[in-house]
Amino acid sequence: MREIPAASGQPAPPVTREQADWAIRFDYHGMTAEAIGGEHGVSEAELGAAAEAATAAHATVGRRHTAGELAWLDLPEQRDEVREVETLAAEIRERCDTFVVLGIGGSALGNTAVHTALAHPFHNLLPRERRGGPRLFVLDNVDPSWLAAFHEVVDLRRTVFNVITKSGSTAETMAQLQCFAGLLRDAVGGPALRDHLIATTDPRGGDLRRLVEREGLRSLAIPPGVGGRFSVLSAVGLLSAAVAGIDVRELLAGAASAVSACAQPDPRRNPALMNATLQWLLYRRGKVISVMMPYSQRLRDLADWFRQLWAESLGKRLTCSGEERSVGPTPIKALGVTDQHSQVQLYVEGPNNKVINFLSVARFDRDLAIPETFAGLPSASYLAGHTFGELMHAEERGTAIALTAARRPHCTHLLPEVRAHTVGQLLMLLQLQTAYAGELFEVNAYDQPGVEAGKIAAFALMGRPGYEQQRAEISAAARPHGEHVSPIP
Amino acid sequence: MREIPAASGQPAPPVTREQADWAIRFDYHGMTAEAIGGEHGVSEAELGAAAEAATAAHATVGRRHTAGELAWLDLPEQRDEVREVETLAAEIRERCDTFVVLGIGGSALGNTAVHTALAHPFHNLLPRERRGGPRLFVLDNVDPSWLAAFHEVVDLRRTVFNVITKSGSTAETMAQLQCFAGLLRDAVGGPALRDHLIATTDPRGGDLRRLVEREGLRSLAIPPGVGGRFSVLSAVGLLSAAVAGIDVRELLAGAASAVSACAQPDPRRNPALMNATLQWLLYRRGKVISVMMPYSQRLRDLADWFRQLWAESLGKRLTCSGEERSVGPTPIKALGVTDQHSQVQLYVEGPNNKVINFLSVARFDRDLAIPETFAGLPSASYLAGHTFGELMHAEERGTAIALTAARRPHCTHLLPEVRAHTVGQLLMLLQLQTAYAGELFEVNAYDQPGVEAGKIAAFALMGRPGYEQQRAEISAAARPHGEHVSPIP
Repeated sequence: MREIPAASGQPAPPVTREQADWAIRFDYHGMTAEAIGGEHGVSEAELGAAAEAATAAHATVGRRHTAGELAWLDLPEQRDEVREVETLAAEIRERCDTFVVLGIGGSALGNTAVHTALAHPFHNLLPRERRGGPRLFVLDNVDPSWLAAFHEVVDLRRTVFNVITKSGSTAETMAQLQCFAGLLRDAVGGPALRDHLIATTDPRGGDLRRLVEREGLRSLAIPPGVGGRFSVLSAVGLLSAAVAGIDVRELLAGAASAVSACAQPDPRRNPALMNATLQWLLYRRGKVISVMMPYSQRLRDLADWFRQLWAESLGKRLTCSGEERSVGPTPIKALGVTDQHSQVQLYVEGPNNKVINFLSVARFDRDLAIPETFAGLPSASYLAGHTFGELMHAEERGTAIALTAARRPHCTHLLPEVRAHTVGQLLMLLQLQTAYAGELFEVNAYDQPGVEAGKIAAFALMGRPGYEQQRAEISAAARPHGEHVSPIP
Repeated sequence: MREIPAASGQPAPPVTREQADWAIRFDYHGMTAEAIGGEHGVSEAELGAAAEAATAAHATVGRRHTAGELAWLDLPEQRDEVREVETLAAEIRERCDTFVVLGIGGSALGNTAVHTALAHPFHNLLPRERRGGPRLFVLDNVDPSWLAAFHEVVDLRRTVFNVITKSGSTAETMAQLQCFAGLLRDAVGGPALRDHLIATTDPRGGDLRRLVEREGLRSLAIPPGVGGRFSVLSAVGLLSAAVAGIDVRELLAGAASAVSACAQPDPRRNPALMNATLQWLLYRRGKVISVMMPYSQRLRDLADWFRQLWAESLGKRLTCSGEERSVGPTPIKALGVTDQHSQVQLYVEGPNNKVINFLSVARFDRDLAIPETFAGLPSASYLAGHTFGELMHAEERGTAIALTAARRPHCTHLLPEVRAHTVGQLLMLLQLQTAYAGELFEVNAYDQPGVEAGKIAAFALMGRPGYEQQRAEISAAARPHGEHVSPIP
């Protein structure tokens, strides 16, 4: 394989809380006036003027935490829950071939993000013995073509489903549950259902909790005060991670260290508060788009998880005081180096309305040498003798240099390596950043009133009792088929 | 499986050019003032006023085509090339287990888009006999951790690599080529290399073509006048499609029918011209973000292909007349219904700076019933008796209703079904839309000058001869390590 040892070839040391060599660094130089000029960068004076707002945001988040609203900040301290998850995961790893998450949004994106980051990149293609546990599927859509195809590649008798919905009533998830529970009954019989179905939901309320009690299903609880998009470090995200062999204690230890790192009210000593403040300042100066661009194939789905966190938390019509403002940065997922060949042209030359957030990895867990297989090719031979890791780093730096020259704001979260500890840090850092940003944008970062209208319309169209009037209104408003349509040919 | 027959259960009829029942319809009602009001929608008067510019754009595209610049418009007429691809694909399907595309940007995104749309959704997990051909991997990144992991799941002796780069000099692709060609030599011996390596590149120039000639490799040609991001219907995209068992003739027939459908200079009779015009008008009114949101798991990667097309073609600093303007809509990929639980809150309540482009599927190739597996659950029982296809459609319509109520512009490409013909139509429609938009935005839609700076910096950092001065400049500009950094903790 011509595989060369990574920069750090030592076996992983035991986890301790203060792992300075695993600490993520946040570099915001590329967002400053010093780097990209005063028209597009944030000056020292501007940052100084924002310090008061930042400190107030920090204080409010602290107050809300103390009041019990932000229980996601306590998730790193879970002890009994971790043991419960680990015990369940060990049993599942032993006895099943396929593990399926039925969930959507906050009940799926974190699962995928953690899995992509920390499991083998081709996990589902490995032989069972090499993988050491089941395959993982996260079914976060209701596309019938896709679900039917999934059914073809799975043996239900050797499959465990983890149905996740905090409310216990999410339409997509309840539809999937009915479908797959029905298929399971056919395949394994009704009494065995409980060996194949684990519910993760509110500890007390909701239809799914009711079902757990009625059918004697096994279940995990999502603690009160942990909203869907802040639930990745709860049982929501931990079970599938543990089933895939990921060290969830290390993940939580990383998250705990990020909480500690954000204890200070001074943005210069609090990376999440600093980034929230800079993003807020730049948004007000027209940088309405926030691109997360990992230079790591493993971190690509973490950008999708963040998209929900940032968009749903900050994209609001009303401020907390009821003022109509329709604010919210639009998050975008990009991927280095891949999107250099797709989006960087626009980022460098198009409208200067973006902030680029690099996720950078100092040491890849494996590196590969680029050999000189063919001599005498000018476009290839200069690469020989380098590693792919060096190529990744050179391209990332090249992109940063181009963005700087074009005066485009950018920043970097630098992960020493991608491992459970750093991923845990990053998840918590970004959640804290979102909480601080919610206060700075003066919005409620924990609700999502804008999805109600669509949900109600869908309920009406699906004939849910109680929505008859909406159904009638939709029918009345339907326009004649074919109007305003350009048919082809 | 409780699988119910799709609305059209007939076997696929033979392909003819005018398949009116497969014709994609473009519905732009949601972009109009009539639907969402004059502040955010386009009025009849505005559209009328833009007709002249639209007609001129259509004429310019026609002229450039006649002049031979836009050879991608001729790709549907390929005959010899299709036979060559089909012959090669038949041989590969027979003798290999894994087919790998080494390419990036325009040499990868189309391959993935077509594959996801038309192959089995879990293609690589099917047993060999069920799949009927090899697994497919598109390696469009140089992340060493990912490439090393890929190597673990592949038997090189049963693998064929298709290395694709039009210039024959793309750094990432040449690095991959050297790595995997080296590994192949070790695995199968030098003389057998040509059985495992197919080059797709310029017919005459570049290092990869030179290599083809020197080593006697098999190759396919990317015709002159077909730029990377417009190359999906050339050998670039066709070989991997044919290897996966996709009907490339039907794909091209669909593309041909889209060319026919765009013959008219009147936007009301030319769907690609209509959408280009509306997007351009709305961009000038502050809708700087263009979201492509397929309500189909199969079409999700087509949105990524379009991201490159739209961003790299339109995101330009200079207009054709040299005026500095830094224009270009920012494309975003979203996915229905999944992103209803992630992005729709922002789309409905956040800044009104987006156009949402739905890709809608009238008939899913398979549908599934939602049974009433558990009685007495209010949040589940109303779904029973419906199908997942109905749920998808209800949610899509719900989202459109919410966007309309919030006065957010949106439009829909309605595909009667997802099959090679409709996918071919859509690819060509979107390419034509991009070409028209390039003329309306007054930019060169076929270059990408903004990626040069980053490339040069990466060359310099990788020590490419001829870039010594840039390397020295980069070193001199490097700031001291640790400045502007908030370390944790």
